[in-house]
Amino acid sequence: MIIDGEKVIFSFNAAMEAAYVAEAGSALTVKTHDCFYQHMLEEGSCISTFEMDSANPATGPIYVEGAEVGDILKVSIEDIEVADRGVAMVIPGAGFLADQNVEETKLIIPIEDGKAHLLGLELPIRPMIGVIGVAPEEGDSYPTNTPWNHGGNMDTKDITAGTTLYFPVRQDGALLALGDAHALMGDGEVGVTGLEIQATVKLKLDVIKDKNLAWPMLETEEATMLLVSGDDVEDALRKGLEHTLPLLQKGLDLSWNKATILASLALDAKISQLVDPKITVRYPIPKSILSTERILEIL
Amino acid sequence: MIIDGEKVIFSFNAAMEAAYVAEAGSALTVKTHDCFYQHMLEEGSCISTFEMDSANPATGPIYVEGAEVGDILKVSIEDIEVADRGVAMVIPGAGFLADQNVEETKLIIPIEDGKAHLLGLELPIRPMIGVIGVAPEEGDSYPTNTPWNHGGNMDTKDITAGTTLYFPVRQDGALLALGDAHALMGDGEVGVTGLEIQATVKLKLDVIKDKNLAWPMLETEEATMLLVSGDDVEDALRKGLEHTLPLLQKGLDLSWNKATILASLALDAKISQLVDPKITVRYPIPKSILSTERILEIL
Repeated sequence: MIIDGEKVIFSFNAAMEAAYVAEAGSALTVKTHDCFYQHMLEEGSCISTFEMDSANPATGPIYVEGAEVGDILKVSIEDIEVADRGVAMVIPGAGFLADQNVEETKLIIPIEDGKAHLLGLELPIRPMIGVIGVAPEEGDSYPTNTPWNHGGNMDTKDITAGTTLYFPVRQDGALLALGDAHALMGDGEVGVTGLEIQATVKLKLDVIKDKNLAWPMLETEEATMLLVSGDDVEDALRKGLEHTLPLLQKGLDLSWNKATILASLALDAKISQLVDPKITVRYPIPKSILSTERILEIL
Repeated sequence: MIIDGEKVIFSFNAAMEAAYVAEAGSALTVKTHDCFYQHMLEEGSCISTFEMDSANPATGPIYVEGAEVGDILKVSIEDIEVADRGVAMVIPGAGFLADQNVEETKLIIPIEDGKAHLLGLELPIRPMIGVIGVAPEEGDSYPTNTPWNHGGNMDTKDITAGTTLYFPVRQDGALLALGDAHALMGDGEVGVTGLEIQATVKLKLDVIKDKNLAWPMLETEEATMLLVSGDDVEDALRKGLEHTLPLLQKGLDLSWNKATILASLALDAKISQLVDPKITVRYPIPKSILSTERILEIL
């Protein structure tokens, strides 16, 4: 099933209506827009003439048949094919050092043979999805530029081809939407943009019944991690740890203190992004310590 | 030259007296103590009977002949051999979730065949140095449990065998001291200890004349990074970025905005530790983007 990208949302909310319908178990090809809705790809265009209300369009929502409240929506990312050019910017007053970013700078960056060409450098690309999420709880509404416990703008560079996301289903059908791919981004996304780019994403959707998951979870080849957001980086790091330790406790049958010691020795506190309205972090749990299957069992 | 570990310091200060003397260009073998001065390695010992004033002993200071104020002391870490057992703890009221750590837990952890045996797991060790630094500026004094621009308790897991540290020399002879090795530690050190252990460290010392370096710098096989500390994690991350961007600017002849874009796409904001009196972070600059040699040129 091909989802063309004609229908997009700018907020994840409980009342949003399905634009597409997919069966559980089905494979989808989803066209996604860059975070500027392709507006900045022309020479001469500048942020002052762009409506920020039109930023971060997410293709969807996709209603997944069989996904009910209390389930997990499993999203296997099979491929992310990016366009042949994207854009990276400094936007006045934005970014981690916002007060030092006073003038707009825009680089239109060609991609050739898997490399981004910018500033005299050739950097191997590593395509990832910036915005991906599901409908939140009744009454909640989050602009697509914001990450929270529904997913959204998590801007986590590990969300690449070959990884799997697990979302808590909070509305029947889950109502998945995605966009804002980056050809390349560093942890922190300190400048406020990655290499923003259109993409074609191949996904497989599955439903896991009756699970208790508070935050989106990502499985990579090496590790499993919750993607937790907070009001600032310290808050996000504390919440991330508070949600990660119980997985070690339950998964390995440890006390809180022993889980804390294990985390201190063997888990890395990692920053996803420092620049969105909420800050996102992760503490990858190596599969050599605890398998994803075991984590799913204890949810 | 073998430095036996009999002489230690508990603060890095401008007035400290040399305990050992080494020539620039010389190779040293330094015995280091665990952060508890081996006090916690016995069954039944507990933190309440341990004087925290005796925590984090650093072997030294080592006066390096030829190192003058305004130079860089280059410390090549050639080997870190750790003892056959160490200790990891939860200490009441300490750690990143301090208020949830109410009881002491101590694990004495044997090391066999390069693996730490704890909690039913076998974790490959990755020995690193927690405390390493030089004398600070006139009038400054930092307990060895604290990291700052002299180095100290930077608790950075990348300080392993095969890496090189660069310290700003702020007193003649530099006055190097080190201790607090960890057989294993995760970024963040969220529980407040790593796998604390005695070690024998092989170093090579060199002096680079007349350089302007504000914070300690670490060179690994893949990257070069400043080790920057701040009052809290947000402060540390901002300062870390503010000091890293000028390296990209000068090293690659970029504007501030273009350096910001490059950092956003290609540098990772990484946490060293979240639990010491000051917080330490790093933004590794990949050598594929900018060489250590070029960075040293522009200092």
